[in-house]
Amino acid sequence: MTFEKKFDEFVDEINENLDKLVVEKDNLQKDIYTAMRYSLLAGGKRIRPVILLACAEILDIDKDTVMPFACAIEMIHTYSLIHDDLPALDNDKLRRGRNTCHIEFSEALAILAGDALLNKAFEVMSKKAIDMEHPTRGLRMLHQVSVMSGTEGMIGGQIIDIQSEGKEVSKEVLETMYKGKTGCLLKAPVLVALEAANCMEDENAEILINYVETIGVAFQIKDDILDSIGDEKTLGKNTGRDVEKNKTTFVTIYGLEYCEELLEELTHKAIGYAEKLGEKGKFLKELAVYLLKREN
Amino acid sequence: MTFEKKFDEFVDEINENLDKLVVEKDNLQKDIYTAMRYSLLAGGKRIRPVILLACAEILDIDKDTVMPFACAIEMIHTYSLIHDDLPALDNDKLRRGRNTCHIEFSEALAILAGDALLNKAFEVMSKKAIDMEHPTRGLRMLHQVSVMSGTEGMIGGQIIDIQSEGKEVSKEVLETMYKGKTGCLLKAPVLVALEAANCMEDENAEILINYVETIGVAFQIKDDILDSIGDEKTLGKNTGRDVEKNKTTFVTIYGLEYCEELLEELTHKAIGYAEKLGEKGKFLKELAVYLLKREN
Repeated sequence: MTFEKKFDEFVDEINENLDKLVVEKDNLQKDIYTAMRYSLLAGGKRIRPVILLACAEILDIDKDTVMPFACAIEMIHTYSLIHDDLPALDNDKLRRGRNTCHIEFSEALAILAGDALLNKAFEVMSKKAIDMEHPTRGLRMLHQVSVMSGTEGMIGGQIIDIQSEGKEVSKEVLETMYKGKTGCLLKAPVLVALEAANCMEDENAEILINYVETIGVAFQIKDDILDSIGDEKTLGKNTGRDVEKNKTTFVTIYGLEYCEELLEELTHKAIGYAEKLGEKGKFLKELAVYLLKREN
Repeated sequence: MTFEKKFDEFVDEINENLDKLVVEKDNLQKDIYTAMRYSLLAGGKRIRPVILLACAEILDIDKDTVMPFACAIEMIHTYSLIHDDLPALDNDKLRRGRNTCHIEFSEALAILAGDALLNKAFEVMSKKAIDMEHPTRGLRMLHQVSVMSGTEGMIGGQIIDIQSEGKEVSKEVLETMYKGKTGCLLKAPVLVALEAANCMEDENAEILINYVETIGVAFQIKDDILDSIGDEKTLGKNTGRDVEKNKTTFVTIYGLEYCEELLEELTHKAIGYAEKLGEKGKFLKELAVYLLKREN
């Protein structure tokens, strides 16, 4: 199967599952479900859940075991975007080619829809864990996600981000910020897969973690490049926002040209890790190239 | 031991544990810890964790087993207050006798501090569950909390609340709203204790659930009365906000006098449930009276 076909199949399955996990309801609370679904089913790239499904395959884990966790991580990613887009934070109006949640509905509903998605992620993961053959394994999978999305993970990165706005920040601060804001939630799927396979200490664990940490930095550099030169229409969000907000990015620190080089280099490095997995690493290898070339 | 002494001892232990679970850090993310601690350690009544410790005692559960869950529920309660107080929601400036989180810091930080407390709650609960003698029991405790704080629980109630502002709502809608907004997170500690004791099907389970559901309604009626006639200084938050925002409350529907009667009646009913537990129900009995008489 080609990479594209496999990727699309993963995405379709993820979308089907997200659709089932947050259903429309016709009750007094129905607006929250509408808002959650609006942002969750807006057609994101689904990189994080795709990484989880790919790792599960490599580690011979049943897809059904990890699917709720893959969806939960996507819910957490979506909630972080909803809250990040709010007027008090990035004040963005366009996301995934449509109105951001607070523009489409209201600030109040967007705040609560974000809260609800974060909460739902843990509801979904704990329910799955209870039903698993090894609930303790499910529990450890959930715990890994909670750490990666927390104050020393994703939220930590966001904090550094809002503190850095309008200030010149060092490379070190920028790297810590990105590691939290982007890296941790990309790493979460790998950690979840490793816990599911109960092989946190194996050789594969180190390879996969190295792979995803490298991808994490590359991903953010690409984001910065796209914000700097990308096309708003293809990107589905407003560009030039980093400059507008006087944000330090990889591009402002290293310049566009060097960033392109760095991106190539990191992609090459990630491919090297994937190759260590032999035939099994094929999808991750092509994923690294896909992420290099993406235009949104 | 008198009720007051026991209550204060519970509160002291809860505060000590909260203080340890969210520590000050001297890293790039330190502002988030400062904001989380500001709201979390602002001296709330700690009713929810107190209910959990009291139920654990009744069901012969070790206090250490439930303490992280008690603290997690208080974190969730606190995050909901921080987000509720935001300008886009209730726009409140005073809480627990001091500036609300967004007034003290910024809206951006308040949004993230709320997110961080919700996330931390699940981090804390899952960590404890992993270390428990029966991790699966811990997992079920965590799951109960996630449902009670979710879209069919607390967040569901908040949604109905923001939709109802400025509208006249029926008794039925008001009751559903309060059941979600206030009732569910008061019920969570009872469900957690019952899962910890693995006695969800016992006779005690029904009694404790009846007790806390009754307390839940009484608690909200008392809140409405206090907003209507309470003293701002004693209350530690702005009063008359319900009228200002044209909110339907128990007081606007039933009038003050009937609300006082209803409150007495529900307290009496709750006492009846507590008495069914015999000597063991003593603390919950006095807690019902304490909640009836509270002035904040």
